[in-house]
Amino acid sequence: MSSNLPKIAWIGLGIMGSPMSENLIKAGYDVTGHTLEQEKLDRLAAAGGRAASSIAEAVRDADVVITMVPASPQVEAIAYGPDGILENARAGALLIDMSSITPQTSVDLAGAARTKGIRVLDAPVSGGEAGAIEAVLSIMVGGEQADFDEARPLFEALGKTIVLCGPHGSGQTVKAANQLIVAVNIQACAEAVVFLEKSGVDLKAALDVLGGGLAGSTVLTRKKDNFLDRDFKPGFRIDLHHKDMGIVTDAARDVGAALPVGAVVAQLVASLRAQGDGGLDHSALLRAVERLSGARV
Amino acid sequence: MSSNLPKIAWIGLGIMGSPMSENLIKAGYDVTGHTLEQEKLDRLAAAGGRAASSIAEAVRDADVVITMVPASPQVEAIAYGPDGILENARAGALLIDMSSITPQTSVDLAGAARTKGIRVLDAPVSGGEAGAIEAVLSIMVGGEQADFDEARPLFEALGKTIVLCGPHGSGQTVKAANQLIVAVNIQACAEAVVFLEKSGVDLKAALDVLGGGLAGSTVLTRKKDNFLDRDFKPGFRIDLHHKDMGIVTDAARDVGAALPVGAVVAQLVASLRAQGDGGLDHSALLRAVERLSGARV
Amino acid sequence: MSSNLPKIAWIGLGIMGSPMSENLIKAGYDVTGHTLEQEKLDRLAAAGGRAASSIAEAVRDADVVITMVPASPQVEAIAYGPDGILENARAGALLIDMSSITPQTSVDLAGAARTKGIRVLDAPVSGGEAGAIEAVLSIMVGGEQADFDEARPLFEALGKTIVLCGPHGSGQTVKAANQLIVAVNIQACAEAVVFLEKSGVDLKAALDVLGGGLAGSTVLTRKKDNFLDRDFKPGFRIDLHHKDMGIVTDAARDVGAALPVGAVVAQLVASLRAQGDGGLDHSALLRAVERLSGARV
Amino acid sequence: MSSNLPKIAWIGLGIMGSPMSENLIKAGYDVTGHTLEQEKLDRLAAAGGRAASSIAEAVRDADVVITMVPASPQVEAIAYGPDGILENARAGALLIDMSSITPQTSVDLAGAARTKGIRVLDAPVSGGEAGAIEAVLSIMVGGEQADFDEARPLFEALGKTIVLCGPHGSGQTVKAANQLIVAVNIQACAEAVVFLEKSGVDLKAALDVLGGGLAGSTVLTRKKDNFLDRDFKPGFRIDLHHKDMGIVTDAARDVGAALPVGAVVAQLVASLRAQGDGGLDHSALLRAVERLSGARV
Repeated sequence: MSSNLPKIAWIGLGIMGSPMSENLIKAGYDVTGHTLEQEKLDRLAAAGGRAASSIAEAVRDADVVITMVPASPQVEAIAYGPDGILENARAGALLIDMSSITPQTSVDLAGAARTKGIRVLDAPVSGGEAGAIEAVLSIMVGGEQADFDEARPLFEALGKTIVLCGPHGSGQTVKAANQLIVAVNIQACAEAVVFLEKSGVDLKAALDVLGGGLAGSTVLTRKKDNFLDRDFKPGFRIDLHHKDMGIVTDAARDVGAALPVGAVVAQLVASLRAQGDGGLDHSALLRAVERLSGARV
Repeated sequence: MSSNLPKIAWIGLGIMGSPMSENLIKAGYDVTGHTLEQEKLDRLAAAGGRAASSIAEAVRDADVVITMVPASPQVEAIAYGPDGILENARAGALLIDMSSITPQTSVDLAGAARTKGIRVLDAPVSGGEAGAIEAVLSIMVGGEQADFDEARPLFEALGKTIVLCGPHGSGQTVKAANQLIVAVNIQACAEAVVFLEKSGVDLKAALDVLGGGLAGSTVLTRKKDNFLDRDFKPGFRIDLHHKDMGIVTDAARDVGAALPVGAVVAQLVASLRAQGDGGLDHSALLRAVERLSGARV
Repeated sequence: MSSNLPKIAWIGLGIMGSPMSENLIKAGYDVTGHTLEQEKLDRLAAAGGRAASSIAEAVRDADVVITMVPASPQVEAIAYGPDGILENARAGALLIDMSSITPQTSVDLAGAARTKGIRVLDAPVSGGEAGAIEAVLSIMVGGEQADFDEARPLFEALGKTIVLCGPHGSGQTVKAANQLIVAVNIQACAEAVVFLEKSGVDLKAALDVLGGGLAGSTVLTRKKDNFLDRDFKPGFRIDLHHKDMGIVTDAARDVGAALPVGAVVAQLVASLRAQGDGGLDHSALLRAVERLSGARV
Repeated sequence: MSSNLPKIAWIGLGIMGSPMSENLIKAGYDVTGHTLEQEKLDRLAAAGGRAASSIAEAVRDADVVITMVPASPQVEAIAYGPDGILENARAGALLIDMSSITPQTSVDLAGAARTKGIRVLDAPVSGGEAGAIEAVLSIMVGGEQADFDEARPLFEALGKTIVLCGPHGSGQTVKAANQLIVAVNIQACAEAVVFLEKSGVDLKAALDVLGGGLAGSTVLTRKKDNFLDRDFKPGFRIDLHHKDMGIVTDAARDVGAALPVGAVVAQLVASLRAQGDGGLDHSALLRAVERLSGARV
C-alpha cells in the first residue's frame, strides 16, 4: 500500500494477534501473516492482509517480523530450526516478539538472532483482548534504543503506553513484575472481601470507601463487580496467570530477588488450578480465600 | 455562633485531632476540647474553641462527643471510669469515636454506652495528616442509620468520602481491611522493585508503565518517589502499621477469615520494626525485601 | 499418709488433671481437689483424695497449690478475686500452674502472688493424656531455682523430663515453642504426603525411608498411620492447637521474633477450624493441603 | 576378581562417588571408573579399581553403569550424545543413576534408554559424605521391581535403608520430599530458637526438653550444636539445598501439589544465598530468622 512503510510479517494470529495485526493493516502497513489455523488466515486476508502458508514464506521479504504466541516453547519453535524465522528472515530484519515469555528466552533469542544479522526487541503487552482491539495496549520493550526508535511508529498503531525498559529481556521482566503485582493486589482484595463479609459489613459500601483511599487500585476498580457478584467469567484466566507466576518466580530466583509474598500467591494460583478453577478469571483468587475460610466448599 | 448546631466536645488533640477539631470550628461549631498537653489546648483556644481541664468538664453539656486517640487502651481510659465520658456525658448524647481501634472494642463501647442512654458511632478515618488539614478524609462508619444521618453534617466538615458500612464496629473493620490492603499492595510493589532492579531494568520507566495498567494502584502512584529515592521519611510510620496489622490479624482470627498473605506481610512489618525501622514510612517494606535479597545489609 | 510430704491442693480435674492428681496420691501425697463437676470430685475421692467444695476450702491449708485448667482466662478466674487462690492460700505456699497459657499471664500471676507472699512456678507439660496417665510427661518450668528444687519430687511423680528453663513465664515460652515446632513439622509432612501421592509414589514405602534419615521426626513416627489411613480421631485437637498458635504468635510479636513460617501455619490451622475440622487431630493439617491441591473437596 | 558378580562402570567420583565406588570394590566388585579429574582416577586405581579415559571405555563391557553427578544437566551430558552412556553401553545393561535430579529427567532418561535396550533405576541417596564412607546411606529407588531385585546386593554394599518407592522417577520424588521436610523442619527450629532467646529462656535447657517430646526430630538432634554455637560449617550447603528446593517446587507444580510452607522456606533458602551465605550449612536458616528479627545485621 505505502512504499515507505516497512513490510510486516506476523506470526501468531490468536485472540491478541488477530486484532493487533488488523490494527497495523488499518494503519496502512502491508502485513503477511502465518498461523496454523486456516480460519485465522482467512480473517487476516479479509482484513486486507496476505496469508502465507509457512513461516519461511511469511518472513522472507519482511522488514519487520512480529511474533505473538502463547509461551516460550512456541517462540522457540517458530524462531529456531530450518523452517524457523532466524533461518529464513533476511539479514537486517527486525524481529519483535510480543509474546509473554521468560526473560532468559528473550535474551537467548536476541543472541542467536545476532549471529544471523537479525535484530530483536522483546515487547510483551498488557491490556488484554479489549486493549488489543482498541489499540490501547501498554507495551514494555527490551532491546536497543535505535531498534526501539525504529519500531515506535508500529507500536503506536497497537498501544498507548510504550516504554523502553532496558536491554534485551527487560520487556519480559517488566511484564513479569506486572503479573506479580496484579496477582498480589487481587489476593489483597480477596482477603479483605472475606474478612469484611465474615465481619458483617456492607461489602459494597466498604469497597466503595476503600477504593477512594490509599487502598485503591486498578484491580479494586475493575474487579469490584467480580468480587461483589462472584462472577468469574474471564477476563484473564487463572491458567495463564499460573504460567506467568512461574515465569516471575523463576526469573526472580535467577537474579536472587526474594518474593516472600509472591511465592505464597503463586501457590494459591496453582491451588485454584488444581481445584479445577483454571478456566476462571484471576479474580477467582477470592474462591481460594473463601475455601480457606470455610465460606465455600 | 449558631444556636442550631450541636455543641461538640473533642477529646484528643494530636496530629489528627487538632486540625479536625479546627475544621469543625471553621464550620461554625461550638467546640470544647480536652487533652493533657497545655500547648494543644492553647492552640484550640486560639482557633476559637474552648479548653476544658477535664473530660468531665468537656463533655458535660455536649450534644456530640468526638474522640480521636491512638489505640484501644486510650479509648477505654477516656470512656470508662468515674472521670470518663460514659459517666459524665448526658443521656441522649452521641459519642463518635474516630480512633482506629479493634472492632471488638467499638462493639463493647457501644454496649456499655447504651446502658447510659448514650449512642455511639465508630468512625475511623484514612487520609493522614494532609487529609485532616484539608478536610478530605475518608470516614468509615459503624452504627445505627439514624445516628449516622444526624452526624453526617459534622462528617462533611471533616472529610469527603463518608460511608455507613454496617453495625457497630463496622467502621473499624473497614479501616482494618484498608490497612491490610495497603500493606499488601506496598509489599507487592517492594518485591517488584527489587526484582526489576536486580534484573537490570530502568526502574523509573518500569514503574511508569506498570502504573498505567492493571498493576496500577494508589500506593504505586503516591509511593513511587519513595521507592525510587529510597526516601522513607514518614508519612505513615511502620510502628503504627504494625499496630494495625495486629488489629486486622486478630479481628480476622475472631471471625474465622483466612489471611494467608496478610499474615506474612504482618511478619515483615514486625520484622522491620525489630530491625529498628519502626519510625520509617511504611513504604520502607522495600528495605525488608532488599535485605532478604542481599541488596542491603 | 506421710507427715513429711507437703499437702497438695489441686484445682482443675479434667482429662489431664485427673490422672495427674491421682499419680500424686499414688506417690503418697495428701491431695485435696476442687473442680465444678461433681463426677470428677467423686473420682478423686475414690482414688484416695479429698473433695473440696470451693477453691478457698481446697487451698486454705495447702503447702502447694497446683492448677491445671484450659487457658489464660480460667487461670485468672481461679487465681484472682475474693474467692480465688491468692486471697485464700496461706503466705509461703507454692503455686504451680501447669496449664498452657500465655507467658505474660504467668509473669503477671507471679507478680501478683508475690505481694501475698505466695511463690509461683509455671510448669506446662507435653505428652498428652497418655503421658499424664503413665506419668511420663515432659515438664517445662519457669521461675526460681529454689522453688523448682522444692517442687522436683512432685514433678517426678508426674513426668520424666523435667527442666527449669528460666525465669517466670519461661515454661510457657518453651511450651509455645514446642507447639510451634510441632505444627510446622506436621505441615512439612502434610505437604510431602500430598506431593508424594500426586507423584504416584508408594506412600508407605516413602514414609518409611524418610523416617530413617534427616527428615525423621517424632511427628513422622507417631502420626504416620494417621497420614496413611486418613485417621484424624484426636489425639490433640485442632481447636487446642489453634489456641496455642495464637499464644506463640502473640508472644513472638511481643518480643520481636519473626515467625514467617509459623504465621502461615497458624493461618492453615485457623483455616481448618473455619472449615469445621476443629475437633480433629492436628495431623488433619493434611486435609488443608489436600484441599489446596484439589485432592479433597 | 569374582566371575559371578556383575561388572561395574562408575561415572562421577566426587565427594560421594569416590567412597561409594570404593565400598563396591571392597565388596568384591570389579569397578571401572571415569571422571574428568586425574587425581580422582588415581585414587580409584589405588583402591583397586580401574581408570577409564572416557565414558565409552568405562561402560562398554559393564553389566551395571552407576552415575553420581551433581545435577540434571550433568546427567544429561553423560547419558546422551555420541560419547554418552546410552550410545556406548551394551543392550541389556542396567543404568543406576544415584544423582539427585528432577523426577522428570529420570523419567525421560528411562524412556530414552529403553529404546537402546538399557534398563534404568533412579536411586538417589541421603546420609551425606559420612553415610557414603560408612556405607549406611538411605537409598530411594524408582523403577521396575525386577531391576531393583537385581541391584539390591549392590545397594547393600552402599547403604542400610533401601526402598523401592514406585515407578521411574519415584526415587527422585522421595528425595525431593526428603529435602522439603528437612528444610521446613530446620526453619521450624530456627524460628523457635530466635523466639526462645528473645524471650530470655535458657536455650540449651529448652532444646533438651523440646527434643524429648513431639517436637523432637533428627534435625533438632543433629543440628542442636549448630544452633547453640552458631556453627554453620557445612555439612550440607545452602547452595545445594537451594538447588533441591527448586527441584521440589517445580515437581510439585508439575503434579499440582500445593506447598504453601515449602514455597516460603524456598524463598528463605534463596534469600540466604543472595546474602552470601550459600556456602554455609543449611542450619544457617537460623541466620535468616535472626536477621528478620533484628538479632543479626
